[in-house]
Amino acid sequence: MAKQPPVAIVFDTFGTVVDWRTSLIADLTAYATTRGVTADWPALVDAWRAAYQPSMQRVRSGEQPWTTLDNLHRASLDRLVAEFGIKGLSEADLAHINLGWHQLKPWPDAVPGLTRLKARFIIGPLSNGNVALLLNMAKAAGIPWDMIFGSDLFGHFKPDPETYLGVSRLLNLRPEQVMMAAAHNGDLAAARNCGLQTAFFPRPSEYGPRQERDYKAESDWDIVATDIQDMATQLGV
Amino acid sequence: MAKQPPVAIVFDTFGTVVDWRTSLIADLTAYATTRGVTADWPALVDAWRAAYQPSMQRVRSGEQPWTTLDNLHRASLDRLVAEFGIKGLSEADLAHINLGWHQLKPWPDAVPGLTRLKARFIIGPLSNGNVALLLNMAKAAGIPWDMIFGSDLFGHFKPDPETYLGVSRLLNLRPEQVMMAAAHNGDLAAARNCGLQTAFFPRPSEYGPRQERDYKAESDWDIVATDIQDMATQLGV
Repeated sequence: MAKQPPVAIVFDTFGTVVDWRTSLIADLTAYATTRGVTADWPALVDAWRAAYQPSMQRVRSGEQPWTTLDNLHRASLDRLVAEFGIKGLSEADLAHINLGWHQLKPWPDAVPGLTRLKARFIIGPLSNGNVALLLNMAKAAGIPWDMIFGSDLFGHFKPDPETYLGVSRLLNLRPEQVMMAAAHNGDLAAARNCGLQTAFFPRPSEYGPRQERDYKAESDWDIVATDIQDMATQLGV
Repeated sequence: MAKQPPVAIVFDTFGTVVDWRTSLIADLTAYATTRGVTADWPALVDAWRAAYQPSMQRVRSGEQPWTTLDNLHRASLDRLVAEFGIKGLSEADLAHINLGWHQLKPWPDAVPGLTRLKARFIIGPLSNGNVALLLNMAKAAGIPWDMIFGSDLFGHFKPDPETYLGVSRLLNLRPEQVMMAAAHNGDLAAARNCGLQTAFFPRPSEYGPRQERDYKAESDWDIVATDIQDMATQLGV
């Protein structure tokens, strides 16, 4: 029997809605030029993102108390600037660079696709980003979220079940009335384990030339689409 | 010295943004007619709202553990239906009537004024309502919030400081970068005590013919306006 359509759809954000790698490389390169600082910025961005999961894992495991992603990003940046031997960045520069995550640009299909979906569904990010990061991003990029589900609302990072189930609790919906949409099979597997519906579309250039996974759906997700516009079409809006 | 403009503006909702009394009386009267149930619906609505503060006070005082406003509303409704001797309402009817709070109508200036403010400021409700209530209301009425600050995010009802300070924490702003807007002087006094900026405009018909207070600003709030449109004008948007 076909499932009922969801009432709410929540979206992974980094990679799924916004192109963090292209955005950050462009932002850092332009900013560093104005500051007269040189470095291999694409390599720094890739290393920064590579620090993402290990930094959250220290929180998930209990080794480190709850810390927002903004603060994890900053700690990783400080370490990498030292490791890369980058000189000449002030405290204000580092604070500015860290806020690059608040200014990421959406993939071209994201805002038009989300605008269509918003007409029928509650839509929001369900991201490891904190509310301030996700909200500033939405304001800058015109992403029309109804509600911002930052990880700081739950004190947990995905794939901890408190995040997926936290959305259904705050919306007073059953888990199967919520759909998780992501370009990452692992996120969807965790959401499905919590009872959510699932939607996948690939972002094959998310990690640049060295992408290693998530080129295609690895399970029978409820929706498999080419992008958010196609997802809206499949949902009949 | 004049203060800096706020970055975010949060709005009390019941009475300030939406006209709960007119909305609920119209909704209950129409619904009860279809169900063939008669009662003094304006009196029931006034009694229901009169139960609002005492029901939250039991949570604030610790007499009762954290309970969403949806659940407090339902408990009050059940008691009042019995007290008023209203017969013939099924469980589904009572659930439907309780969801009337999710469908309240905005005052005429609210959506156009908020739309103007959204162009320059982060805007959201800071209400004793829970996220599901406030989000369903926004979707039904087209209220263009950036983020929904329901009381269930904080596990506290206003005027507990955890609510006002919770907004500044989630937005990573200092309290003075947040403005509280309300048609209720008491709400603003509590917000000012937490360091927030304040904006007042009166809603003299909120409580109908028996309104007893909040006809005018009772302190030197940072903004005193006639409504949300005037508030937008005073803020230069």
